[in-house]
Amino acid sequence: MPIRILTEAELRECAVINHDALAVVEQAFTWLAEDRAVMPPIMHVSVTDRHGDVDIKSAYVRGLPNFAVKIASGFFDNPKRGLPSSSGMMVIMDAGTGFCTAIMLDNGYLTDLRTGLAGAVAARYLAPEKVVTAGVIGTGIQARYQIRSLALVRTFERLLVFGRDPARCNSYIQDMEDMTIRLGIEVSACDSIESLVKACDLVVTTTPSRQPLIRADWLHPGLHVTAMGSDLGGKQELEAAALARASLLVCDRRAQCAVMGELQHAVAEGLMDENAPLELGEITSGKHSGRSSEEAITICDLTGTGVQDTAIASLALERAKSMGLGTEIGS
Amino acid sequence: MPIRILTEAELRECAVINHDALAVVEQAFTWLAEDRAVMPPIMHVSVTDRHGDVDIKSAYVRGLPNFAVKIASGFFDNPKRGLPSSSGMMVIMDAGTGFCTAIMLDNGYLTDLRTGLAGAVAARYLAPEKVVTAGVIGTGIQARYQIRSLALVRTFERLLVFGRDPARCNSYIQDMEDMTIRLGIEVSACDSIESLVKACDLVVTTTPSRQPLIRADWLHPGLHVTAMGSDLGGKQELEAAALARASLLVCDRRAQCAVMGELQHAVAEGLMDENAPLELGEITSGKHSGRSSEEAITICDLTGTGVQDTAIASLALERAKSMGLGTEIGS
Repeated sequence: MPIRILTEAELRECAVINHDALAVVEQAFTWLAEDRAVMPPIMHVSVTDRHGDVDIKSAYVRGLPNFAVKIASGFFDNPKRGLPSSSGMMVIMDAGTGFCTAIMLDNGYLTDLRTGLAGAVAARYLAPEKVVTAGVIGTGIQARYQIRSLALVRTFERLLVFGRDPARCNSYIQDMEDMTIRLGIEVSACDSIESLVKACDLVVTTTPSRQPLIRADWLHPGLHVTAMGSDLGGKQELEAAALARASLLVCDRRAQCAVMGELQHAVAEGLMDENAPLELGEITSGKHSGRSSEEAITICDLTGTGVQDTAIASLALERAKSMGLGTEIGS
Repeated sequence: MPIRILTEAELRECAVINHDALAVVEQAFTWLAEDRAVMPPIMHVSVTDRHGDVDIKSAYVRGLPNFAVKIASGFFDNPKRGLPSSSGMMVIMDAGTGFCTAIMLDNGYLTDLRTGLAGAVAARYLAPEKVVTAGVIGTGIQARYQIRSLALVRTFERLLVFGRDPARCNSYIQDMEDMTIRLGIEVSACDSIESLVKACDLVVTTTPSRQPLIRADWLHPGLHVTAMGSDLGGKQELEAAALARASLLVCDRRAQCAVMGELQHAVAEGLMDENAPLELGEITSGKHSGRSSEEAITICDLTGTGVQDTAIASLALERAKSMGLGTEIGS
């Protein structure tokens, strides 16, 4: 059975930030909530003496022709050698035979894409209808993907960014210039997280922080926060009390957020029961409603799920086939 | 960074049943016992509505340049469509950077190879020095690999096979004819498991049975049994009382055997504590001794470990590089 090998460059042609990709990522949340997905816990290989970690995620969705097994790594000494710290790939399995049908050497691109789009799904259901000012904490890849994806679901006039390194802040503002030119959004840096949060209707946190960056008493009526940086025990972007203060707290997956998301701290401090939050799929499926009023404070805790990987990989594979992309290797 | 893609045909050139491969599989047991390996629990994706299962195993060994992530599947409706039920592949990661360096499209060949060799490691340390008659229960691939590997560590004169299907028994005997011709071993079928066990000094069980095949009271002084068929909750080849009757019970990995090996039943029936058996690596490392006397009854419970996958894949990669095998794809 030949296997289609797709490189990062080819995958960047197949799948981009657009409404089609947004729709499959949103669908993935619904699948999870409707119990159509079999998603085992994340497998974690600690390469401790080399400062590295490998995470393996997978999910089978009943009715889909394929599912993905994603291998993602973070090796934190790589930048010293001029190499990126993260990399990744996906193995696509035929759900009917268990045979490998494709290998996506995406170096983490599809993860970046689906993670940004997951933020847009959260904003779609939880952010106020009218967002004037959006804000982002962090200046890395997700600070870009989250905001570009957000533009699919909300029109906003101003984007504020906070980053500790002014050079990286400037480079972020330059990179986002197309927003200014194409969408007329004014992009500028903010000198404190507090002033950013207070000035925004929507904030996305995208950092690997292990200390709370946003205090509970900065939250104001009508604010939505998506926290997507924390995806490991010990990581934290929001003060635990902020979660308890939200009118509506939503997780991508409760069981994951309780060990690796913002929820872990609220549970540890006894502020919240692990089962109290909704899951985003319970809202996308229509079972529960999202934001209930303009005054509500909403928080979405995203840790990333294997179902999203299966969803974005399925889209990319379908497109690659129709575009004739990839190299076939007989096995 | 280019990635080397190796097909099954290429891997069959790189790694075969020989003393080099036996040495790395034996080494892998020692690594595990010496705590040089980081081996997370097996990840399991149940594709229940398609009668399929995917298992993912991995292990990082400190000091090795690479480690493997193995994806193995079993889809039990495949044979109805003329397809093999199992398939598999390995993704090889650079242990220093986390980048993927190679993909081995081995369709399970490397697993078959290291599983057979693991049986030989067990026999090397646990079987009597002098084996006159060896026996095998089952007539599938492992019935072949176990016995061919056994021939690396023990000289025997007779091989008995038991299988329920006479046609498969005959085809097994024909396939093993090189043993007869090259090694002067007489191969014949046995009409009951009881008579086989009673006639043998060493027995390997290689079936997917869910009922005990070997009764405790058939065990006789001087017998060694390697049970390698059970690798899932519910599978069983030996009566639980047989484990309690052994002078020496050895597991590849206690924690795995207690949930998916023969040990699960002995523990469930209260015949044995989960921590009572030795691990094979505690013997290969020299920390404990193996068979203590010619009269001892020894049993080895093998479920397969990620460390063995990393070991055999590392050998195959090294050989593929030196032989110039594989196709490089830039990612």
